Amino acid sequence: MSLIVEKYGGTSVATIERIKAVARNVAESAKQGNKILVVVSAMSGETNKLLALAKQIHAKPVERELDVLLATGEQVTIALLTLALHAIGTRARSYTGSQIRILTDPVHGKARIMDIQSARARHDLENGAVVVVAGFQGVDQDNNITTLGRGGSDTTAVAMAAALQADECRIYTDVDGVYTADPRVVPEAKRLERITFEEMLELSGAGAKVLQIRAVEFASKYKIPLRVLSSFKFGAGTLITDEDTTMEQPLITGITYHRDEAKVTVRGVPDKPGIAHSILGPISDAHINVDMIVQNVSADGLADLTFTVSSDDLQKSERILAPIAAKLGAEGIVGDGNLAKVSVVGVGMRSHAGIATAMFKALAEKGINILMISTSEIKISVTIDMEYTELAVRTLHKTFGLDDPAHPAAD
Amino acid sequence: MSLIVEKYGGTSVATIERIKAVARNVAESAKQGNKILVVVSAMSGETNKLLALAKQIHAKPVERELDVLLATGEQVTIALLTLALHAIGTRARSYTGSQIRILTDPVHGKARIMDIQSARARHDLENGAVVVVAGFQGVDQDNNITTLGRGGSDTTAVAMAAALQADECRIYTDVDGVYTADPRVVPEAKRLERITFEEMLELSGAGAKVLQIRAVEFASKYKIPLRVLSSFKFGAGTLITDEDTTMEQPLITGITYHRDEAKVTVRGVPDKPGIAHSILGPISDAHINVDMIVQNVSADGLADLTFTVSSDDLQKSERILAPIAAKLGAEGIVGDGNLAKVSVVGVGMRSHAGIATAMFKALAEKGINILMISTSEIKISVTIDMEYTELAVRTLHKTFGLDDPAHPAAD
Repeated sequence: MSLIVEKYGGTSVATIERIKAVARNVAESAKQGNKILVVVSAMSGETNKLLALAKQIHAKPVERELDVLLATGEQVTIALLTLALHAIGTRARSYTGSQIRILTDPVHGKARIMDIQSARARHDLENGAVVVVAGFQGVDQDNNITTLGRGGSDTTAVAMAAALQADECRIYTDVDGVYTADPRVVPEAKRLERITFEEMLELSGAGAKVLQIRAVEFASKYKIPLRVLSSFKFGAGTLITDEDTTMEQPLITGITYHRDEAKVTVRGVPDKPGIAHSILGPISDAHINVDMIVQNVSADGLADLTFTVSSDDLQKSERILAPIAAKLGAEGIVGDGNLAKVSVVGVGMRSHAGIATAMFKALAEKGINILMISTSEIKISVTIDMEYTELAVRTLHKTFGLDDPAHPAAD
Repeated sequence: MSLIVEKYGGTSVATIERIKAVARNVAESAKQGNKILVVVSAMSGETNKLLALAKQIHAKPVERELDVLLATGEQVTIALLTLALHAIGTRARSYTGSQIRILTDPVHGKARIMDIQSARARHDLENGAVVVVAGFQGVDQDNNITTLGRGGSDTTAVAMAAALQADECRIYTDVDGVYTADPRVVPEAKRLERITFEEMLELSGAGAKVLQIRAVEFASKYKIPLRVLSSFKFGAGTLITDEDTTMEQPLITGITYHRDEAKVTVRGVPDKPGIAHSILGPISDAHINVDMIVQNVSADGLADLTFTVSSDDLQKSERILAPIAAKLGAEGIVGDGNLAKVSVVGVGMRSHAGIATAMFKALAEKGINILMISTSEIKISVTIDMEYTELAVRTLHKTFGLDDPAHPAAD
């Protein structure tokens, strides 16, 4: 008998009919002899509806009260799903974050889970009941209601799985797994049977939106096998686990992309310690997220520092840096919007040389200019003009054999 | 500085605009130097909307989960009202029933309050914050969410007032006080400045729907002055307190009525011990509420037992009693629907004889036949044909001087 945590997102519980379908799915898992704990999100649209109510009262609602308001969304879903389970003869009990006692830090709106009391859930599971838990929410140590931020239900599911030492955590969503590339861009893209935590983290960081990166980190840390699968369509989905060293790893697992990037170059700054900090410090202080950073020192002892931000933040970044560049005696600031980042990810990279070369060659053959490069142990990312995004993704998908039906990553 | 508990019902918080109006009202009370704890209901219509969702899943939803669902209604209101208070610069904090810790018995859907932890609310109040508490809900000792049943928010307000030893509990509603009679029936009806708990209990029991009878009982038991007033219109409302023996009491405080009553008579049963129980026991077992009961023994040793029920329960009562009457050797069962109960209430009755006589005379003069009579120390109720209801109420209102602008009960 396995202990499985199943998580259903907002679109999976968007209507009463969908909630009934989820109940049937859960009942089926339970009938197979598994102990099931279900984590659910608010019905699709509910959170935004509640937010809109709050905004009618206050443009910047105080976060403690916003959390009290938003937490009702998941509370409605747990009650309805539990009723739907009862209606088909499956014993179940619902719990809010406060009732299970999902203890978080007191940072309203983006709280982090500190501890989970699992005794009550375990007791119900051992008595054969399905346990239905509200995702996205917890309480701080003074019993104030907190929320974990968007996508927090994935984190709740993984954290519950870790607390209960579950055999698997299944994230039901509107896609049927993790693909070798975005199927809207690459028709030949294939669902991956398995993928490692590291690869999933790199894919998420590089733009793939299947799972919240925090949830993957959590699962990786506590070694909870994570499965992404569709709540609309039967299938095995994609299993995300620790690296299986007994299996041959595919060279490249997936190609991903992220549009609407921009780069900012501060040219001709004196190359001395502290320059990167004087430039990037104020950017970070303005809550602008910096992705890639490259610094080149030329022969004349002057450096160019380039970094990428979201296109939305380009003008703001230039404005912030203008006086700083002047003070540093820089030659100028050059901004460039409408870029994209394309990444190839795969743990196989560790043991194979030449991936970068193959990547650059393939892009060059299509006339795609590479503006910036950054690498990790299992990922190579390049920044290119946004208009080449799809071409680059399709080219790399083919180059690394992911189009090939016999590729070991393939379904 | 006074500590005031204010309760706003569903119609008072039905829209964002209404919630903002309530916030202004609360802020004004706070500015007058009072410590304010507010109890709110769900926005009008929300509870029914949630119930309808549950009914789409299960015709008879399991009550534990229904309570989890319904409790979200008040949770939304406390967050929105607290945000509205913040928006106008009034410090406030919201609490669910679980957070305050309103401990109830575990009877879902109609739980009774056992204990209230007041320390946290007291701490906030002493720090100058308005405390906003969700009405209608609590938790049992295993932290399961419970609800108090319809109108439970009044009970929450009075119980919070008792726990905090508040100076006054104000129930804001859609009427501006308790009247000498229903103003829709008696245009001359006047708002009462004050009324005793006993009178209010008799009026509620006799059909007046201003306050939940449980809330009045609670306030009476803990001697919390209760004030009913309008959340739509400025005014002093009606204060409900213990009897003030230093003041002259008006003879009659109010006239009230209850339509759709029916009476059932079991005729000619042998007059021996246990008869009333053999007739009324099965009625009570069928969850039929019995109001008045009269038994007459005739010279031949046979008794007629008559009782009143709601018109809706008339046929069911006759069906239940048919075999019992046969077994008892009764002469028969006579049912009579379309009746009304009209009551006169007043603590002044205690020290004045002749009220009943005056009442019966006034009704006789209008040709109104009295079918049954029941009395308490401060109330006389008569059952009459329903079609005479308004005439009877207006006649009695005039008979006992309530039409008179100089009547001591008047505004």
